[in-house]
Order: sequence, then structure tokens, then C-alpha cells
Amino acid sequence: MRNIKLTIEYDGKRYLGWQRLGDTEKTIQGKIETILAQMTGEKIEIIGSGRTDAGTHARGQVANFKTASTFETEKMLDFLNRYLPRDIVIKQVEEVAERFHARYHATSKTYSYYIWNDVIPTAFHRAYSFHYPKRLDSEKMNEACQLFIGKHDFLGFSSLKKTKKSTVRTIETISIQKEGSLIRFTYVGDGFLYNMIRIMMGTILEIGSGEREIATINQVFKEKIRTQAGETVPAHGLFLDEVSYK
Amino acid sequence: MRNIKLTIEYDGKRYLGWQRLGDTEKTIQGKIETILAQMTGEKIEIIGSGRTDAGTHARGQVANFKTASTFETEKMLDFLNRYLPRDIVIKQVEEVAERFHARYHATSKTYSYYIWNDVIPTAFHRAYSFHYPKRLDSEKMNEACQLFIGKHDFLGFSSLKKTKKSTVRTIETISIQKEGSLIRFTYVGDGFLYNMIRIMMGTILEIGSGEREIATINQVFKEKIRTQAGETVPAHGLFLDEVSYK
Repeated sequence: MRNIKLTIEYDGKRYLGWQRLGDTEKTIQGKIETILAQMTGEKIEIIGSGRTDAGTHARGQVANFKTASTFETEKMLDFLNRYLPRDIVIKQVEEVAERFHARYHATSKTYSYYIWNDVIPTAFHRAYSFHYPKRLDSEKMNEACQLFIGKHDFLGFSSLKKTKKSTVRTIETISIQKEGSLIRFTYVGDGFLYNMIRIMMGTILEIGSGEREIATINQVFKEKIRTQAGETVPAHGLFLDEVSYK
Repeated sequence: MRNIKLTIEYDGKRYLGWQRLGDTEKTIQGKIETILAQMTGEKIEIIGSGRTDAGTHARGQVANFKTASTFETEKMLDFLNRYLPRDIVIKQVEEVAERFHARYHATSKTYSYYIWNDVIPTAFHRAYSFHYPKRLDSEKMNEACQLFIGKHDFLGFSSLKKTKKSTVRTIETISIQKEGSLIRFTYVGDGFLYNMIRIMMGTILEIGSGEREIATINQVFKEKIRTQAGETVPAHGLFLDEVSYK
């Protein structure tokens, strides 16, 4: 069997998220699997690097699948982009070693979260950023970001119930870029728990607007109580930018 | 009567263009006039700096209207942005001199046109750029832009029928910026005829892709025959960025 790696861009607006549910119609995974089945005549299951929530976007989601078909990768790229809805685009198709696994072998992920920080809303970025009109203190937000960097148990910053699996993750960097009213927060780490970025982001915003003390971050790390962290910000400001492999 | 100036941003995707038609529902002008009537109790007609086509976007359209109402401009801004559809945003409301006229007094306009220049399409910019997969020669396009700059009779580069009104316009600058696969062409001039930017843009692309000789530009200036110029590129790549006044 050949093992094929896909790099995928999608506008998550119209979808229930990455992960196929019973009905394949409203998920990214489902849409791609349907077209792959048409192309190969096989029943194909693709493995994503991880789920993305309903409404979340991706510039560089990665997935792989096994197939006996002999299509050239270039032909696959053309076929997929011809028949997929136009808000899902395959950027790259590569044949990879048979052991390659999009989820298990991912070593690092990059996400961006966008804030539209202005009293006046935006006509263009509204599906791709969270409108947050309160004044934000950049220095306080920078300080808060520094506290998240490194290896921590992020259970309190996730929507997971208590679990036997490890909830320890390492964040390499969080950077902040501002262009006019649009602020981009870029998170790089070895992995992120369910809702972890959206809860960290909500916590950082509450610190930036002065509603929350920076010290609460270390308190949540220690006590691991979700309700002590900030709000979960909406999914539509979040982009999965890149998944890295060794 | 007070004279009020509006600066308006809109995503033109869902609209039939700026100009109100019989039914007000599907135009930007119609939408704004409806809300202004609700706010003031008056029948208000707004004067735009110029029309934009169905599907064309704006970051800085300007309009003015007369009113006897005594609302503060800040209140107007809040009211409009509260009740307008979310793809139309009022950026600024100012009280101006009674003689100010958004169309007659405009001295210069800036438009941008976006090209997605890649074989692989885009999931995000597709409503805001024209997908043009052919390879483009930047130097040839630069040369073509230079020929458009200055004072010319642009009748052959417009969709106007022969008219008694002057079709002479002056283009100050055309600049090209590239960021990845996205190319932005910025046009600054004292005014643009119907479809003029979309036809210049189509002509520049045909020159850039090698399908057309640069010399045809001066030929169209001389002979003023629309069919000798390039294709009219789609409206959805076009943004009205700014309207300037003395």
C-alpha cells in the first residue's frame, strides 16, 4: 500500500470541524474522504494531525491515508481541488514512507489566533478574528505569554475531564504581532489539549484588559481547575498554520 | 440642514453594488438609507463618491447626506453599526460644511485589485482576489503600468458608450506589491470611468502572461476601441480603498 500525505487549507466557517461524524457532509475529513473514494474506488480513511473545532480554520493541516491506487500525486492534487468545495484546498500531495503517521509523528504545531481590537467592527475579518473592543495592555499580555511558555500541566487550561493520559505539554513560543486593529497571537508547541489555545487566549485577554491578575496563571497550573482560568474565546479566530515532523 | 459625511467599509459579496436600485434590499446605498430613515424618521438620500459594481468591496467609500435630526455623530455611528448587516461597517461619521458633496468634491481615489497568482487556489482569498494561474512577468507588467500613468482619454479602456462627457482622466500611480501568491495592484487617480480599472487590469495581465503586446495600450488610447483592450476582470478582486478631498 502507498502512504500519501496531504497538506490542507480550509475556511472552517461552514463546517462542523475536522473530525468526521456519522454523516460525512459537514466535516473537512468527511468531504476529503468522499472525493478520495470517488477517485480511487476504495473506502479511504484519512488520519489528521489532530482535530480542529467547528469554525476553526487551517492553512496547513496535515493528514495521511493508505491506498492501492496508482494515481500520480500530481493527478491526485488536481482531482481533489477540482471536486472539493472551494473552501477546502489541497496545497500539497506527497508520497511518504509507509510508517508515516500524521498524528503520532507530529513533533510541533503552530496556531494563530486573531483579535480585532477596535470599538468599530470589521466588514472583512469578522469570520477570521474575534472582535474584542476593550483596550488591551501589550506589556501585561507579553508577561502573561511568558508564563505559559515551557513545560506545564495544562489540564486547567483545557476542556478535558480528568484523564489518565498526560496533560503535560511544552509551549515553545507565543508571539504577538499588531497590524492596525488586528492582533495576531502565534502559538508554537509540541501539542495542545482540547480548547487549550482558546482558553489561554481568553485568559491573556482578561489580563490585557485588566480584569484578571497575572498571578492567576500559576494558580491554574497548580490547582488545575478549569473554572479559575479565562473564558474560551470563539473558534473562528483560530487557524492551524503548520504541523511539523522530524 | 446638517451635512453628514460617512466613511464606509463593505464586503460587496452579497450585494448588487453601491447604487440603490428600485428595491433597496440588495445595495449598499439602500441598506444605509433604510437604517438612516429608521434613525431620523426622515426620508434620506445619501450621495456616494461614486458607484461600485456588484461584488466590489470598499475599505473607504465616502458618502454624505443632509438631515434635520440632532443626533450626535457618535450616536449615529453606534446606531448604524448596530443595525446595519455585519458586512457593512461605518468607520467614521463627521459633520461637514453644508456645501460638501461626496461626488463632486472628490479629488482623488485609490483602488486596489488583488490577483491570486498560483496554480493552487486559495481557500481564504477567493472572494477577495481573482485567481489567475498563469505565470506573470513582473517587468512587463511594470512597463505596462507606466504607460497608463498620466493624462489620457480612457474611453477605449471603459465600458462606456460614446458620451458627450469627458473621458479624460489622470492616473497618478499604479504600484505592484507581492506577498506570496497574492499580488496587489494599487491605482491612484483623479477618477475612473465605468469598468476602467477592471479593463486596465485585464490588459496588464494579458501583457504579463505574454498574450498581448505592450504597444496595444497606446493603440487603444489612440483608436479608443474597447474591443482592442484586454478582458474585464471580475469585480470581486476590486477594493475602493480611499477617496480624497481638498
